[in-house]
Amino acid sequence: MTPTPETSTSGAREPDASRRSDRARRAILSATRELISDVGYARLSIEGIASAAGVGKQTIYRWWRSKAAVVFDAILEANSQDGGSVALPDTGDLESDLRAVLRGTVAALTEPATDRLQRAITAEIQADLVVADELVHRLLRPQLDATAARITAGVQAGQAGESVNPQLAAELLFGPLFHRWLLRTGPLDDEFADGVLAMVLAGLRPR
Amino acid sequence: MTPTPETSTSGAREPDASRRSDRARRAILSATRELISDVGYARLSIEGIASAAGVGKQTIYRWWRSKAAVVFDAILEANSQDGGSVALPDTGDLESDLRAVLRGTVAALTEPATDRLQRAITAEIQADLVVADELVHRLLRPQLDATAARITAGVQAGQAGESVNPQLAAELLFGPLFHRWLLRTGPLDDEFADGVLAMVLAGLRPR
Repeated sequence: MTPTPETSTSGAREPDASRRSDRARRAILSATRELISDVGYARLSIEGIASAAGVGKQTIYRWWRSKAAVVFDAILEANSQDGGSVALPDTGDLESDLRAVLRGTVAALTEPATDRLQRAITAEIQADLVVADELVHRLLRPQLDATAARITAGVQAGQAGESVNPQLAAELLFGPLFHRWLLRTGPLDDEFADGVLAMVLAGLRPR
Repeated sequence: MTPTPETSTSGAREPDASRRSDRARRAILSATRELISDVGYARLSIEGIASAAGVGKQTIYRWWRSKAAVVFDAILEANSQDGGSVALPDTGDLESDLRAVLRGTVAALTEPATDRLQRAITAEIQADLVVADELVHRLLRPQLDATAARITAGVQAGQAGESVNPQLAAELLFGPLFHRWLLRTGPLDDEFADGVLAMVLAGLRPR
């Protein structure tokens, strides 16, 4: 590591420590993603991640309570450009904002490495409720909540009826996508996502 | 087995053989269901089923090409009162017929033995495309098609708009239910099923 100007004064130790932490965190998440695509979810271990990331096991346990927690943060970081935020854009056009998030979901679920990883996790949560809880609270609930918040803004802007239940509407948008993907009932593509959106929006319109 | 009158003439051999086949078939499907709740899907074997049902392995392979195929027929038989048909009722009231099928799905998925079995299969199909294909063709596609057919009848009766895509509508009804159940994002109950139905029907109404 090259010392940076900030290390020359004691008052600047904090930013440097924070940068080191951030570097370690990114190394851990990146190692997790690489290992998973090599060995799969079931054979992934905290020891393996620590060794690949060049950190001690305790560093991982300081930030995450389980393998599942690290894995979901690794997915989150890969899926979001700003490292975690799932807020939807609000361009003022509800339909176009929802289309963007649904097409983004299609792209994420059908990207081969993500597909493999998320299927392994889906298999895991059928029997493991702790992993299921991490999945819901770190990935699924934030996405549903962010979508519901965008629909609520649409209601306020008069683009959706006041009687609409935004949480339920969010599940109507994502449910059919995950249904196709998880149960393999048909191709998951933009055409399907657009069809789902059109039908849900027809039910949301103010009347 | 007690000989029945039909066995006394050569022309009556058929019905008796057919009854024996039917008895063997039911014994196999029933043994499959019992074994699955004892040992789980992964440890279930054709040998185990044959032994529990008192038939030879070849009898099973004559009718089914894989373990997955036997298992799905066992589920089908347990789920349907008439041993396989998935046609929806048509009382003339689209909303009430769809409510019945959605609530029936909620009841089936949350019944403990079915829940365990279908979760095991869901885990399995994430990696096994042959099992996925059996699931889709034996269980999921027939249910979606039957629901789409009922919606088509609703369009003809003027209870849904002519521009409605019945197949897509069926996926909008079942998708959110399976999403909640498989990904464990919330409780799967009648209240949720009714909410999904109301929102989808709002989008289907003729305008």
